[in-house]
Order: sequence, then structure tokens, then C-alpha cells
Amino acid sequence: MREGLTLGILGGGQLAQMLALAALPLGVRVVVLEPDPNAPARLCAEHLHAAYTDAEGLARLAECSAVTLEFENVPTQALEALAGRVPVRPGTALLERTKHRAREKEALRAAGVHAAPFVVIESDADLQGALATVGGRGILKTSELGYDGKGQARVNSDAELSEAWAGMGGAACVLEGLVPFVREVSLSVARTAAGAVAFGPLIENVHREGILRTSVFPATDAETLEPRARELARACAESWALEGLMTLEFFVLDGGQVGSTQLLVNEVAPRVHNSGHLTQDGGGLSQFEAQVRAVLGLPLADWRPLHPTAMVNIVGTDYVEGQPLHPDWDGIDALPGTHLHLYHKTWRARRKLGHVNLVAADAEALAARLAELERLIP
Amino acid sequence: MREGLTLGILGGGQLAQMLALAALPLGVRVVVLEPDPNAPARLCAEHLHAAYTDAEGLARLAECSAVTLEFENVPTQALEALAGRVPVRPGTALLERTKHRAREKEALRAAGVHAAPFVVIESDADLQGALATVGGRGILKTSELGYDGKGQARVNSDAELSEAWAGMGGAACVLEGLVPFVREVSLSVARTAAGAVAFGPLIENVHREGILRTSVFPATDAETLEPRARELARACAESWALEGLMTLEFFVLDGGQVGSTQLLVNEVAPRVHNSGHLTQDGGGLSQFEAQVRAVLGLPLADWRPLHPTAMVNIVGTDYVEGQPLHPDWDGIDALPGTHLHLYHKTWRARRKLGHVNLVAADAEALAARLAELERLIP
Ligand SMILES: Nc1ncnc2c1ncn2[C@@H]1O[C@H](COP(=O)(O)OP(=O)(O)O)[C@@H](O)[C@H]1O
Ligand SMILES: Nc1ncnc2c1ncn2[C@@H]1O[C@H](COP(=O)(O)OP(=O)(O)O)[C@@H](O)[C@H]1O
Ligand SMILES: [Mg+2]
Ligand SMILES: [Mg+2]
Repeated sequence: MREGLTLGILGGGQLAQMLALAALPLGVRVVVLEPDPNAPARLCAEHLHAAYTDAEGLARLAECSAVTLEFENVPTQALEALAGRVPVRPGTALLERTKHRAREKEALRAAGVHAAPFVVIESDADLQGALATVGGRGILKTSELGYDGKGQARVNSDAELSEAWAGMGGAACVLEGLVPFVREVSLSVARTAAGAVAFGPLIENVHREGILRTSVFPATDAETLEPRARELARACAESWALEGLMTLEFFVLDGGQVGSTQLLVNEVAPRVHNSGHLTQDGGGLSQFEAQVRAVLGLPLADWRPLHPTAMVNIVGTDYVEGQPLHPDWDGIDALPGTHLHLYHKTWRARRKLGHVNLVAADAEALAARLAELERLIP
Repeated sequence: MREGLTLGILGGGQLAQMLALAALPLGVRVVVLEPDPNAPARLCAEHLHAAYTDAEGLARLAECSAVTLEFENVPTQALEALAGRVPVRPGTALLERTKHRAREKEALRAAGVHAAPFVVIESDADLQGALATVGGRGILKTSELGYDGKGQARVNSDAELSEAWAGMGGAACVLEGLVPFVREVSLSVARTAAGAVAFGPLIENVHREGILRTSVFPATDAETLEPRARELARACAESWALEGLMTLEFFVLDGGQVGSTQLLVNEVAPRVHNSGHLTQDGGGLSQFEAQVRAVLGLPLADWRPLHPTAMVNIVGTDYVEGQPLHPDWDGIDALPGTHLHLYHKTWRARRKLGHVNLVAADAEALAARLAELERLIP
């Protein structure tokens, strides 16, 4: 049987959980290395309950067919310990870029891909004139460890910039110019070690307070944007020697003329992406299966829902009268076309706790149901 | 969070595995009681590794929100131990019928539903004239414990009947008349304890050597057959007070006139069914989610793929030159529209080891791909 394949994952959160749920039916056993005893992936994978740098845990991962990850901030020490013993994908050099915003932007530039204007801020001297350089309004982001809008601050003046940087304890940052985007979209690309390349669908994303709220397939203007997004994704994948799956987030700029748009890369995730969760229930391959296949060198093909699909995240709300606001679970189940995905995480404000995928036969039906669904999720 | 719900399952085979894979994203934790240490469900559920009648294991199941099962032959002792402590669904009385072919046929008759002509064979005296009663050609089936064509023998003469019955050690049997069906179809029905009813799609099935080989949605003549199949399923569900999900297998008879057909019930399974596996990848709810919802009393709705879908079972072959024949795994992955589902069972001839679901935009494309897929699976 094919069942000899095993996949090691650094990290045991919801992405690892959904990777494991996708891997199991392919005949692939999954082992996760994850210090959190309540990590979501423990429910459907073998859980090595230890630090990411634990020698015994890493030795066990080194026995797998290949190792991948579900977050970019894997300690370099863990990657070094695995090097030469087992293929680690998408690859250590690629990870060194994507875990560090300044390096990522430089690597994008080297691949011929445009990102927002930026200035690296590593000392007080770097603050001087930085805001003017990026256009007078910007977003200061820590170079490392940011996610879901954490480690970011909007700044509109030099005074605000200095204050924001002090607020981040003077950590290495990039200051990005505020991009006047009309929309945000994302696209994933997979590449095997043998060089086969495949793409996910172009997906349109709406953020709220720096956290992804809603994703929709197909994206507005996909006919013109998708070929360009694929070109950019392929350029990155090939120049960075991707082995696995990565996702590009883009800003869509209004090109000035009717129907003319332009893509800037916002950031790159070396893995499946929240926006791609909608591929789980669209009839095509899911991004999770795509990552598993790419990492294990199984045959690849473009993955794409067969019909219009959307996703709404379930994010922990603030307390209202001593209680968080809960989604209307029965309402979600009763709405046609919904697929609930809960991660079994403990509740916390601003934490991603699950998502709902929504399918419909056509785009109009999808839009109507999506409006209803969004009302059911506070 | 909704995550307080827990589901107990008697049995840990592939159906329990796929129930668990469907339950987890709903926020439902799953516990299986299963003596086999290598049972498929252990990979994605808490595994109580003990006999079905183990007091401690049953006590743990009794703490769940509800208990269901994945096979009909659950020991009565286990059901009795759980009675009154936790809802056991689809219900003990219903199980007493469906685990025993003779009782099942009598219960079908009581619900006003037609089955094949049959004679109960429990003593030598019952053999007398039995074959003539059912039409001269028949299939002798053990009343209990048969599955995948096991415990069955085709008989064409009284001598063959006597011999077949002796071959079954004189176990309680039914002799069914050989039904000259033109096709086989199946339909699942779910019903909550509160009386809400929902249906799965009508699915067309092809068997080989008594084992399901291929299922297809939509079924031929679904427009005329499906309403009738639903009526019969509803009659059974309501007269048997179903709480959960059950599946009816039907023979389709040629009614003599063009376009005139008739349905006879072959047998009833008190659970999800191999033919319904194709609902996993069709964009609608899956039968596994439907069973979980029905058993836990969550909102129900008809479940149905959004586009044409098929399924081909992967069954262990006999040895050829000392080796079993393996499917062409890479060919399966490379064929557009495939979704592989392996159960992580050890290989054995005539054992169900996995299945491949196949989706396509239209029925013609599905038929073409299905022919290709069947060539990849020996
Ligand atoms: N330079 C920018 N201009 C305008 N909006 C931005 C910019 N950078 C980030 N954002 C907004 O904030 C969101 C989150 O920022 P991002 O850099 O992607 O951080 P994270 O790593 O938390 O996803 C983006 O999707 C976008 O909506
Ligand atoms: N009375 C019958 N007449 C004709 N074919 C039958 C009859 N009973 C069973 N079969 C064939 O054998 C298959 C398996 O029989 P079934 O009773 O459903 O056993 P199992 O419990 O193993 O599924 C059926 O799907 C059908 O193809
Ligand atoms: Mg982002
Ligand atoms: Mg049968």
C-alpha cells in the first residue's frame, strides 16, 4: 500500500490540524512537534509534545518521508538540526527570507517582483526622513514574529513614527508606505523538488483590524489579474527554489484607467494560507492536499473550486457584558451551503477559532448567502 | 464554544474513521470503542482499546453527548449496558431489526415496503419447497453477520440449497428469490430524535462478486425513482422511529413498459453506507456529517453533491505471482477530479482498503474519467 509515507510538521496549530486531516486520506501518517499540550493538531496526528528544538522530537521528525511547517517563525536551530537528515520543505533558505520582512522584500526585489515602498528601521538614524521616503503615511511593522496585524502600527507623522518604534521596543522593523489599494487578493503556488509547478485559485480577501475576515472565489477581475499573479508567483517560486507550497498576498491598485489594475506583493507565507481555506469544500483539491502532495513529491495539478465559494473566519470577539459574542451555530448549520470548521482552540479575543466555508451554484446566490452568513458571525 | 459536544462510536473501522474526520471540524470530539489495536479510527479519534462489552469502555462512552455505531452487529449486551445512560442512535429496536435479515424483512413488510420474496430457513423442514416458493432460483443468506457478499450462496436447485445450508453450518438463514434487477440504487435518510427528516441523494451502484465496486451520482432515471425511494425511506424511518441515519439498498426492476420501473428493498444498513462515500467531495454535506448531525440533534438538511460524482472502491486483490495487484497511485493522483481516501488498513484479499471519489463538471466528463479511473484500480 501507499501507506508507507509519513509527514512531519513543525507546529501543531489549526494549519497543521487541517494538513493532517488532508494527509490521512492520502494514506499519509502525520507527526507534529508542538509544545502546546492542547494544540489543535493533536486530535488527528501523532503529537510529539516538546519544544521545537527538542533533540528527541527532531530525531523522530527526521524519520519521516519529509518535514514541513505551519508557521514561518520556526527556530533556525530546529531547521539546522534536521538539515541533511530529512528533506525540510519549503526549504531553509526560503524560510530565512519569509520569516523576516526586510529580507523578504529584498528577495522579492531580486526576483523582479514589486512590493510596497519601504525603509528598513533598525536604529534611530533610520527614522530620519523615512516617512517622507515612503510617501508621508505608512505602516511600521516588526521584521519578525508579526501575524494577524500584530506588531504593526499606522503612522501619519514623524512624531507618530518615533513613538510607534519606541512602542515596539526598538525592534528591527520595516516602514511601509500606506498602499491605496482597491482590493486585496492572494494566490498560492506549489512546486515539487523535481520542479513541477501548480497554482491555487486567485482569491479576494477582506481584512478587519488587520485580521482576515472574508475570502471569496472567484476574485473580481480574475481574468486579468490571475495570469499576472501567476507570473509573479512563478517568478518567486523559481528564483527562491520553492519545494512545497507558498502563498503571495497582493494589493490590487487602481491603474488610473477603467479596467486597468496593477499588483503589488504585500507579503509571502511559506505555507497554506487562511484565504485558501475555501478550497476545502469547493469540489477541487484543497490547498492542504496541495501542500502535502508538493512536500512529498506526489503528482501536482492546479487546484481550484468547481463553483463559487467563500470563507468567513470565526474570530474571538471582545467581551460584551462579561461574555464573548458567539456565532449563531444553529443558524450556520441551517444556512444552505455552509461547511463549519472549528479548531478546538480555547476562546481568546482576536484569536482565530474556526471558519465557515460557503458554496453556491452561482456568484449571485453566493453573495446573498454570504451576507446572511456574515450576520451570523459576530 | 460549541466544542462541548462529544460523540461515542461503537466500532473503529473506516466508517468510524470517516465519521471522526467529519465530526472534528464541527467542534465534536470522538471516542471509539474498538478491540482492534490497528483500527483505522484510532488515527483521528480517542481510541478505547477494549472489547465492545468492556464495562470501563462503555462507561466512558456513556459520558458522551450521544453514542452511534458503524456496524450493525453490535453485541446486544453493549447496547443494554448503555441504555438509559446515554442516547444510543439509531436506536436499539431498529438495530435488532437491521442486524437480522429475517426480522428486517418482516419489519419492512410491516412498514408497507416491498422486498424480494423470501423464506426463513431455520431447520431442515424449512428447506422443503422453499426454492419453488421464491421462484426456483435464489440466494441463501445467513440471517446475521453477513457483509460484502460473505455468508451468501447462489442456489439453482433443491440439492444446491441443501448443500449451501449445510455449508453454512445450519445457521439461521433466509432464502431470497433471485431478483432480475436492471440496476441497483441506494438512498440514505436521516432523522433526529425531534422528528426532523432529511435525505441523501439517490446513488446508482455496481457490485462485483458481492462487493460494491462503483457508485455514481446522479443515478439513471433519478427523476422518477428518487421520489419513490424517498417515500419508502421515510416510511421505514418513521415506522421504525429512526434516530440517526440509515441507508436503504434497492433493486430497480424493469416494469415491463418503457420508462416504467419499480423498487424493491434489498437491505437496510443502520448507518452511513459505502455508496454514500461520494458525498464527501461533491461540495454538499457528506453523509458522515449528516449522521453526526442527526445523532447529535443538530440542524439537518438534505445532502447532495453539487455536481456529478462517482466513487470506485479499492478492494484487496488476490495474489498474482505472489503479489497483490496495486492501484496505480500516481495515475490516480494525476487524473483530474480524483480524491483519494485510504483507510490505513493492512492489505487482505477482498478487503475494502480505500476508495477514490471522482468529480466532474458534467455527466459526460464524469463517465469518461470514470472509465479511466476504473482502469487504474485492479
Ligand atoms: N503597506 C500597507 N498599506 C495598506 N494596508 C496595509 C499595508 N500593510 C498591511 N496592510 C493591511 O493590513 C493587513 C495585514 O498586514 P500584513 O502585513 O499582511 O500582516 P500580517 O502578517 O499580520 O498578515 C493587510 O492585509 C492589509 O489589509
Ligand atoms: N435476492 C437477490 N437477487 C439478486 N441479486 C442479489 C440478491 N441479493 C443480493 N444480491 C446481489 O448481491 C449483492 C450483495 O448482497 P446483500 O444482500 O446486499 O449483501 P451484503 O450485506 O453483503 O451487502 C447485492 O448488492 C446484489 O448485487
Ligand atoms: Mg498578511
Ligand atoms: Mg448490501
